[in-house]
Amino acid sequence: MQAKLTTHLAKNFLFLKGKKLLIACSGGVDSVVLAHLMHRVGYVTGIAHCNFSLRGKESDGDEAFVLDLAEQLSVPVFTETFDTIRYAKDQHLSTQMAARELRYRWFEELLKDFKYDYVLTAHHADDDLETFLINLSRGTGLRGLTGIPAINDRIIRPFLPFSSKQILNFAKKEHLYWREDSSNAATKYLRNALRHEVIPNYKKVTKNTLQQVQKTQQYLKNSQSLIDDYMVLIYNLAVTENFDGYTIHLQKLEELPNKETVLYELLQSFGFTDHKAVIDLLTAQSGKQVFSKTHRLLKDRGVFILTKIKASEDIESKFNESDNRSEHYFIQNSEKKITQPIALTIIPTDKVGYLDTNTIYIDQDKIDFPLVLRKWEEGDVFQPFGMKGKKKLSKFFKDEKLSLVAKENVWLLCSNNQIIWVVGYRADERFKVSTTTQRILEIKLLDT
Amino acid sequence: MQAKLTTHLAKNFLFLKGKKLLIACSGGVDSVVLAHLMHRVGYVTGIAHCNFSLRGKESDGDEAFVLDLAEQLSVPVFTETFDTIRYAKDQHLSTQMAARELRYRWFEELLKDFKYDYVLTAHHADDDLETFLINLSRGTGLRGLTGIPAINDRIIRPFLPFSSKQILNFAKKEHLYWREDSSNAATKYLRNALRHEVIPNYKKVTKNTLQQVQKTQQYLKNSQSLIDDYMVLIYNLAVTENFDGYTIHLQKLEELPNKETVLYELLQSFGFTDHKAVIDLLTAQSGKQVFSKTHRLLKDRGVFILTKIKASEDIESKFNESDNRSEHYFIQNSEKKITQPIALTIIPTDKVGYLDTNTIYIDQDKIDFPLVLRKWEEGDVFQPFGMKGKKKLSKFFKDEKLSLVAKENVWLLCSNNQIIWVVGYRADERFKVSTTTQRILEIKLLDT
Repeated sequence: MQAKLTTHLAKNFLFLKGKKLLIACSGGVDSVVLAHLMHRVGYVTGIAHCNFSLRGKESDGDEAFVLDLAEQLSVPVFTETFDTIRYAKDQHLSTQMAARELRYRWFEELLKDFKYDYVLTAHHADDDLETFLINLSRGTGLRGLTGIPAINDRIIRPFLPFSSKQILNFAKKEHLYWREDSSNAATKYLRNALRHEVIPNYKKVTKNTLQQVQKTQQYLKNSQSLIDDYMVLIYNLAVTENFDGYTIHLQKLEELPNKETVLYELLQSFGFTDHKAVIDLLTAQSGKQVFSKTHRLLKDRGVFILTKIKASEDIESKFNESDNRSEHYFIQNSEKKITQPIALTIIPTDKVGYLDTNTIYIDQDKIDFPLVLRKWEEGDVFQPFGMKGKKKLSKFFKDEKLSLVAKENVWLLCSNNQIIWVVGYRADERFKVSTTTQRILEIKLLDT
Repeated sequence: MQAKLTTHLAKNFLFLKGKKLLIACSGGVDSVVLAHLMHRVGYVTGIAHCNFSLRGKESDGDEAFVLDLAEQLSVPVFTETFDTIRYAKDQHLSTQMAARELRYRWFEELLKDFKYDYVLTAHHADDDLETFLINLSRGTGLRGLTGIPAINDRIIRPFLPFSSKQILNFAKKEHLYWREDSSNAATKYLRNALRHEVIPNYKKVTKNTLQQVQKTQQYLKNSQSLIDDYMVLIYNLAVTENFDGYTIHLQKLEELPNKETVLYELLQSFGFTDHKAVIDLLTAQSGKQVFSKTHRLLKDRGVFILTKIKASEDIESKFNESDNRSEHYFIQNSEKKITQPIALTIIPTDKVGYLDTNTIYIDQDKIDFPLVLRKWEEGDVFQPFGMKGKKKLSKFFKDEKLSLVAKENVWLLCSNNQIIWVVGYRADERFKVSTTTQRILEIKLLDT
């Protein structure tokens, strides 16, 4: 196994030589073998360990074990404790997906902060087959079956051609120590259920299962490449780029065979992954719009107009760079749906225009990102522009003689849950531009 | 289940109404339910039963059961007994593949001879998942995962959306009788092993497994459609059609991304399915040739020349039709490899040209198809054209002063293992055109 693995590393991962490598190590047998092997063959490594706080004392024991391992190998070690359950709940994710997001986000930070070149994970061929069967059982497309990539930007997975058994055998032969994860032995998660109750029998009744599955996955990757090549042609044929997005010309798609699948492939690259919703758009009326995490899609006569949504964090970092360009943003409302396109522009202090129903000017240093759009609630108060005191929003609506329906349609732009703007009606006094204002933010409601 | 099934039939198989349908019925629960249901909903049906002679008395019992069923339903019944083991051995096939070939070939005959419109089989969603997992375990491409088609030319599979359990429940509820296949209960075959030892647990640990797999397979079919569309573009770009085949222009492929996968996709439609052999051709020298069951591929400077191979049976049926057109054939040598392009032409008796080293004229009624090309063997004799007696081939070669190498390169064209032509050297007296000849066959050696 060591000979096989070192040959494999020399043949396929030569570019790792001399680089700074961060080994993701849970303390389990796979990542412990990875840490030992990479160290032995002379690579420059550090170890990163995530404590997901999912198994109480056992999690802490894993962390202590990895700290010992790093000391034993005399390599740097990084550990981080996550409240995975809370994060999963907040983000509406499964525990495993939450752990995954937290893990990779932290790895990115470590790469940047400590100038590591790559993160190495110990994913192996059995992990790949498990993922295949999980995705299959949930209904997936071609991409969902092509497997974990061995090299994905700065994440490297050198163990993918090897089975969990090969790795375990190496660990035993070399008398290595590792931690058993109690959740591995249980069938708590689907992955573990497949690992213990399905895959062993599948391997028993078939031959060279893992190699054949990997061969299949390579063929599927090849097929996906052809689709990608075809979609480049379609893109050139039917899509034009605008300053803040893209236009898809439906007439061009109409001329193609399998236009529904083509449209789905086009749109999924913009984050639209609901197959049925996408197909329904073809027959939807002009004015219909749907949102992905990254884009708004508006159906207009004969075209789909795709506009990039800048997430609040993007807006924040943008403005910290004191960029002077005007940008269009779609700001998330409180239900995490994207509803209103708003232009935010930093402008010179002598360029302030007149307040109108669609534009406000505020002191940027008085607000905090992210800005949030939400509907009004009973009890909301703000300080109408030009007024000394606060006013209940319900009173403001009454004075403005808004109907019930009109009230329901009003959006509030908020910072730290303070109302900056009753959009289209009145700005708030607290955020207004004053003689001490350093940076002025123009916020303009755009036509949708 | 009956309501579901009849709705499904009405929605997706309306075109079956009024057609003559042949139900493939093994006597097992699935096909018995199919026979009952199609009969009940008023379709015009007959029953076809294959006796594969694989389970002795049990097979005969199945046949008797199906005969009874047909009588009970008052529908026509067809049965055929196959020596599956022998056929599998002769054709180098697995028993299941042999049974499959025999079954579908016989169905084709029945459709033709008894003027049935469609054959219906009882394949269901569980069969589809089994096939998926079998192909996955053997290394397959995208096509191998897209599932059994519900409508494939004249084969219809109305039960594909239903699980084996749904079908079984219907049979029980309706108190139907059927035969249990003892090999179904055993794990003799891979399919049965998956059915009993893998899939039940996979279903247990996942949700709506069959529906999700079918959803996946629909997405995979969509992906395959895009590849097919792309390949039409590639075909128009890089392939020209000739009178007896195709030319692939490699320079055109060189300009494409993923040219190896493109080439594989192009060639697999001509029966070249060995991935590595196809890729190796890209770097092979001019003159290299390989063969699929249907085509010869010759690498020449900058091109692949694909020539259609006419199987011996095709040649035979062609000539029985007394077709006057000249055709080019590649005739199989004794090692089942295709080596020599030969033109066979039936010509009017007054059009006989001169014998030359590349052409012979023979009395077509004196020979039997298939014609076979082979190398010479010690002891071969023939009757050289113009001679009364026979001559050993070794003596003929000596008289012609052939070197050892030249002798090895000589091909013999044979009928019933009698030498018709020492190709390029001498025809045989026995097959020559005489005053009583009705049909003259011109055989011409073509340049390769």
